[in-house]
Amino acid sequence: MYYVNPYIRDCVRVFPEQGRYGQMRYDMNENPEGLPEEFVDSVRKEITPEFLSTYPEPDPFLEKYAAFVGMKKENLCATNGSDMAIRFIMETFSREGGEIVTVAPSFEMYWVNCSMLGRRHVPVQLNGDFTVPVEKLLEAVTEKADIVAILNPNNPVGKGYSLEDGRRLAKKARECGAILLVDEAYHYFQKESLLSLTGEFDNVVVLRTFSKLFSLASLRLGVAVSNPELITYLKKSTPSFEVNAVALLFGERILEHPDMIEELIRKAAEGKAYAVEALREKGYEVFPEAGNFIFVRPRKEISCLKEELHRRGVLVKSYGNDLLKDYLRISTGSRQAMERYIEEFLKAEEA
Amino acid sequence: MYYVNPYIRDCVRVFPEQGRYGQMRYDMNENPEGLPEEFVDSVRKEITPEFLSTYPEPDPFLEKYAAFVGMKKENLCATNGSDMAIRFIMETFSREGGEIVTVAPSFEMYWVNCSMLGRRHVPVQLNGDFTVPVEKLLEAVTEKADIVAILNPNNPVGKGYSLEDGRRLAKKARECGAILLVDEAYHYFQKESLLSLTGEFDNVVVLRTFSKLFSLASLRLGVAVSNPELITYLKKSTPSFEVNAVALLFGERILEHPDMIEELIRKAAEGKAYAVEALREKGYEVFPEAGNFIFVRPRKEISCLKEELHRRGVLVKSYGNDLLKDYLRISTGSRQAMERYIEEFLKAEEA
Repeated sequence: MYYVNPYIRDCVRVFPEQGRYGQMRYDMNENPEGLPEEFVDSVRKEITPEFLSTYPEPDPFLEKYAAFVGMKKENLCATNGSDMAIRFIMETFSREGGEIVTVAPSFEMYWVNCSMLGRRHVPVQLNGDFTVPVEKLLEAVTEKADIVAILNPNNPVGKGYSLEDGRRLAKKARECGAILLVDEAYHYFQKESLLSLTGEFDNVVVLRTFSKLFSLASLRLGVAVSNPELITYLKKSTPSFEVNAVALLFGERILEHPDMIEELIRKAAEGKAYAVEALREKGYEVFPEAGNFIFVRPRKEISCLKEELHRRGVLVKSYGNDLLKDYLRISTGSRQAMERYIEEFLKAEEA
Repeated sequence: MYYVNPYIRDCVRVFPEQGRYGQMRYDMNENPEGLPEEFVDSVRKEITPEFLSTYPEPDPFLEKYAAFVGMKKENLCATNGSDMAIRFIMETFSREGGEIVTVAPSFEMYWVNCSMLGRRHVPVQLNGDFTVPVEKLLEAVTEKADIVAILNPNNPVGKGYSLEDGRRLAKKARECGAILLVDEAYHYFQKESLLSLTGEFDNVVVLRTFSKLFSLASLRLGVAVSNPELITYLKKSTPSFEVNAVALLFGERILEHPDMIEELIRKAAEGKAYAVEALREKGYEVFPEAGNFIFVRPRKEISCLKEELHRRGVLVKSYGNDLLKDYLRISTGSRQAMERYIEEFLKAEEA
């Protein structure tokens, strides 16, 4: 028998369901419809045989992204989705047995990476009113912590962090010799960011993704933003060619279209507001989270309803934990996408 | 200050040069021209807004690839380039301080990953006649070895392994509790493979890539092939969405075109044979390696020649080590691509 890393061997993994193409996808916080057709048409023309056969070059994208966030290329590291930024950050800035402090519930890959890499996960319960548990987080960060990972806004449920709370967390983390990792996958939907902390503190790294507002989940494009020293360490942990060239190309072209970005934000806000109102009008309890998703408490029993929706080609997300077990999480998109959802949802409730 | 993994901190990394688009690329063993235009046109039409916004699904590709190699989906794990297969295999099947036995010179990322992950690299010198050092490898594999990594054929220089030699290495590795990793990036160009060893031994994993013959270096698509148990461990070490959907799409479509694959092999062989003959006719010493590249010994001093070629927009690869310092490595492609190269090369020699 050969050697198998015991952390990896014993790690419980559940890979996402497949067969989702052609279904109505409201389960994974993708944009249900995606980018404008004419934009996609124009960019894909650049995918030539020569382009495909050439190894990727991240710099043109990184320069555009740097301008987009008002920083320099040296502040950035692009990764194969922010999933890999999380992984590389944990490999680089934490040790075996080191503590990773997160909010719970939170993005499950933080927990999975702890298990896979032999780090100790320290979960801090979200406040009962779904505000973020800043005081409890501050208490949980000790000398044993290597990383404090927060989602701003939290996912799957919860609010964002004020700049002042972010500062307190960064300061406490620094006192304890830890990194503050701020995952901002959903920040566009709340229009607040802790990005500026990367300039104020040497131990803060902010993650952004192109999978949510920018509608490129298929391509795997994440960006880690921090000070040049931390980024140099992080880059050392990545392979020679971490992000594929089609992701870099689409990323670059999106950033060249600020009007399109504004329109994506506007449409997302419109669709979400519509969905919240339409469901409340029908008497449903809804809580609109800070990301591109909402929670609704259906009348029907959750698993029956989910099955009925699935039969109709509509995918939604439910949770086993006490806090969320009576709710469906629904990704939001344009008004049209939400009209389509609500029609199916109401039919499924009555079926 | 925050904690930084000392292996990663001290690892010396050199990232590939950029600005290669639009140049004549003979330096990284990409296909200089790429896939047929009409094929690329037809596949990129499938890249719709909805496709882009949806998380990748590897199964349809894996099923096609399984049929292609006469195995099952459970024998395969797709990775973000075979670079990441190497990384995940080392993370999963070797321990801190464990030995990784490789041929030297060999693909540099084996060495870099050892350094980054704190593994002990045990290099075994290639034979003087560029045959692979099977006996010396067998001796170097001891109880301290976690992985024996061979390239079949070797890269940047060297030949392939016979099935019998592969068997002896797999057996010795198994006796020592080690994995035999066979990197077959270039196997198409020699038409021999050690793939069948994955069925004979429980400790053999073979890597394939879509970056070379299949001309998709931009997209990052590698496949690890082994028995289902080893693959299960390996998959546990990967993120939820490891390979982007455009890579999976192009990979799947290539496999649906066996005639195109045959034609790619034929054109590659034709171009290489032409280049070898044309250079020998001009009195050059050439050694045609087993991959899609050749070594040529120019008359001009290497660094001057390389500079002159670069001035003409022609990229080639040179080496610092004693064995190869007087040679240029040139990626081979179609006859047209090689005619273009030789024309520039001869001009540069005389400039």
